[in-house]
Amino acid sequence: MKAEIIAVGSEMLTPFRQDSNSLYLTEKLNEIGVTVAFKTIVGDRKKDIAGAIKTALGRADIVALMGGLGPTEDDLTREAAAAALAIGLRRDASQVAALHARAATWRITMPENNLKQADILDGAAILPNPNGSAPGQWIDTTYSGYRKLIFLIPGPPNECCAMFDAECMPRLRAALPVRYIAKRTLKAAMIPESQADKLAAPIYTTFTDVETTILAKTGDIQLTLLCTKTSLEEAQRRVDELANKLEEVLEEWLYSSEGESLEQTVLDYLGFRNATLAVAESCTGGMIAQRITAVSGSSRSFLGGAVVYSNEMKTLLAGVDHELIERHGAVSQEVARALAEGIRQRTGSTIGVGVTGIAGPTGGTETKPIGLVYIAVSDAQKTDCLERNFRGARDRIREWATTQALDLIRRRLM
Amino acid sequence: MKAEIIAVGSEMLTPFRQDSNSLYLTEKLNEIGVTVAFKTIVGDRKKDIAGAIKTALGRADIVALMGGLGPTEDDLTREAAAAALAIGLRRDASQVAALHARAATWRITMPENNLKQADILDGAAILPNPNGSAPGQWIDTTYSGYRKLIFLIPGPPNECCAMFDAECMPRLRAALPVRYIAKRTLKAAMIPESQADKLAAPIYTTFTDVETTILAKTGDIQLTLLCTKTSLEEAQRRVDELANKLEEVLEEWLYSSEGESLEQTVLDYLGFRNATLAVAESCTGGMIAQRITAVSGSSRSFLGGAVVYSNEMKTLLAGVDHELIERHGAVSQEVARALAEGIRQRTGSTIGVGVTGIAGPTGGTETKPIGLVYIAVSDAQKTDCLERNFRGARDRIREWATTQALDLIRRRLM
Repeated sequence: MKAEIIAVGSEMLTPFRQDSNSLYLTEKLNEIGVTVAFKTIVGDRKKDIAGAIKTALGRADIVALMGGLGPTEDDLTREAAAAALAIGLRRDASQVAALHARAATWRITMPENNLKQADILDGAAILPNPNGSAPGQWIDTTYSGYRKLIFLIPGPPNECCAMFDAECMPRLRAALPVRYIAKRTLKAAMIPESQADKLAAPIYTTFTDVETTILAKTGDIQLTLLCTKTSLEEAQRRVDELANKLEEVLEEWLYSSEGESLEQTVLDYLGFRNATLAVAESCTGGMIAQRITAVSGSSRSFLGGAVVYSNEMKTLLAGVDHELIERHGAVSQEVARALAEGIRQRTGSTIGVGVTGIAGPTGGTETKPIGLVYIAVSDAQKTDCLERNFRGARDRIREWATTQALDLIRRRLM
Repeated sequence: MKAEIIAVGSEMLTPFRQDSNSLYLTEKLNEIGVTVAFKTIVGDRKKDIAGAIKTALGRADIVALMGGLGPTEDDLTREAAAAALAIGLRRDASQVAALHARAATWRITMPENNLKQADILDGAAILPNPNGSAPGQWIDTTYSGYRKLIFLIPGPPNECCAMFDAECMPRLRAALPVRYIAKRTLKAAMIPESQADKLAAPIYTTFTDVETTILAKTGDIQLTLLCTKTSLEEAQRRVDELANKLEEVLEEWLYSSEGESLEQTVLDYLGFRNATLAVAESCTGGMIAQRITAVSGSSRSFLGGAVVYSNEMKTLLAGVDHELIERHGAVSQEVARALAEGIRQRTGSTIGVGVTGIAGPTGGTETKPIGLVYIAVSDAQKTDCLERNFRGARDRIREWATTQALDLIRRRLM
């Protein structure tokens, strides 16, 4: 079954805004066996919207229209759908009453214009909108001899996704053959994408009934496994079978079999081991602390950290010997080790991490080029230090270094 | 002049990837007076791509095709364009030679399949690709009696944008009427979007020849002014005229008249005043440090910071009196002030910042709800503290608090 998603709104044809609702809709549609074959973004012009709807009806079974349902002159999706389908548009008395009631709750006088939100397409089911004033509409009709499912839902993400889940998904499920979906997400850190694919491809390509998607992002590889069957047990069995085989080849690169983030995994390990963490960051400038503290509940295991940008701060906050910095330079294995050990001893944490490097775009030399980063992890037993040469712009180097540091902590706790 | 951008690639019809090249192309096209009227995303099926091209030729003057130019079986944009335009596709000898030369440089044997990248549409100009193996193609033709400009460029962002700039823009400029563009970006912090619009709308709506776009993001308001004229001076004059009037009403909320980021503005002020900064962050967990250190050269004014997640760290790294925390609680005006003063004194910075709050989703109480944040800024003269109640999820609260802290530093330096 093929779907087309049409996002309506001139703002999405500027350099400033992008449709993102369609990613959510695509995920949900895929889960019930629907492929998204086209996405179209069209501005607030009735003729353009109507044309896009006709094109979609000619090439897809399901047409999802998002946006253009508000009360302003620019909200023209209803009128365009009526024109494209050659059906009537009638003001619905119950919807008019609902709009008046809503205005009364807000103690505002409703502008006459608002009433256009009560215009309903002939034969459409009204989809209630608990998060806004514009109702959605659902049409199950025939176009050029073929059955078509068409729905109009609002553009704001909270209204769009909530209405799609509550109103459209049950109707789509009822209209489509029964299918069950099993899904698993495996995650691996710091393995090159080509190597991950070399290890994984010979396995997942033999599972022709499981759809495997590999996504790579600065040190993080995500494998999403999706299987659709007429039995949930069978779908789950196949996904688990593939996941188990992939887990074996990905060995210790694998950090999550259920989709948790790397920082969540680190915190899970810390909690399990009753261990605490403190970090001393130079070139990552707070990025490690920021990623860890993005997880709710991180305060149980994460004591805190020092962002030691200047040499004085390295000495002051992490107790790095001033002479050591002079001797080896701020970007050196020795200073990374001293940062990790210093912050651990100073804070009394179980594990201490030190990062120093050259994020660029300036500051690189022949012996210490941009992208050179030292990452040290220290506990009561030992201090290890890794030297890495990351490529790319300042932000990417910082992201790589952060992921590498988190992965080193994980491996120490494993 | 109307354009349609077609992004080709099945990966952009999954929940995982999104076309983003089109934002860049849109910005550039707008600057030469071209409106993007439609965007279409289509998968790697020849029939679908050809259909999308035909639809685009029926509703746009300029058709930009991105992606599907590589060497694999899934790269079908060339074949689809030939079918849609009913023209031939011929292997170009000079391109075959170039592909062989490229393979020789890389010391690899070129697979036979690679040669399809040398297939050129009849009448097309070849667009060189310094960043990859697939050349682009430019077609200036007539379709159903109308002139159409069509170009095929690669999908990877670095290849796509570079080729568009170097090859397509000059050709488009030559084909379109001469126009000059002036552009300015104003930025304001911590002003509610509705208030910004209330102040700005009465002004910018009278400048009908300047296109004003307002974009709001967690405490940051961006106003982009764009004016296209047949004379550059006239366009610049109108943009500056509007910018000056907007600057007046936005008063001290305005932090940039030329598009700099808030953190860049803070660093500019610090440099100008020969001042240094250090931060002690609790709920923002390193986000302030991370945003500041994202700017290259920040080390000149930013000494560093302490991420003081636990009470012990607040005492240890920022010298906050243990009893003060016991008496008022970690989330209190008193502790925020002590953090700011403590980190300033300890590091010897000109300005010290302290942030403490409840980012949620847990930890809120009736008197100290989720979203309550205290932000203090301290220098040798005084320490100010602001109490704010931010709404939203954990990440948004942290982002709001970070922007608020940066804005307070800016206001202190103004």
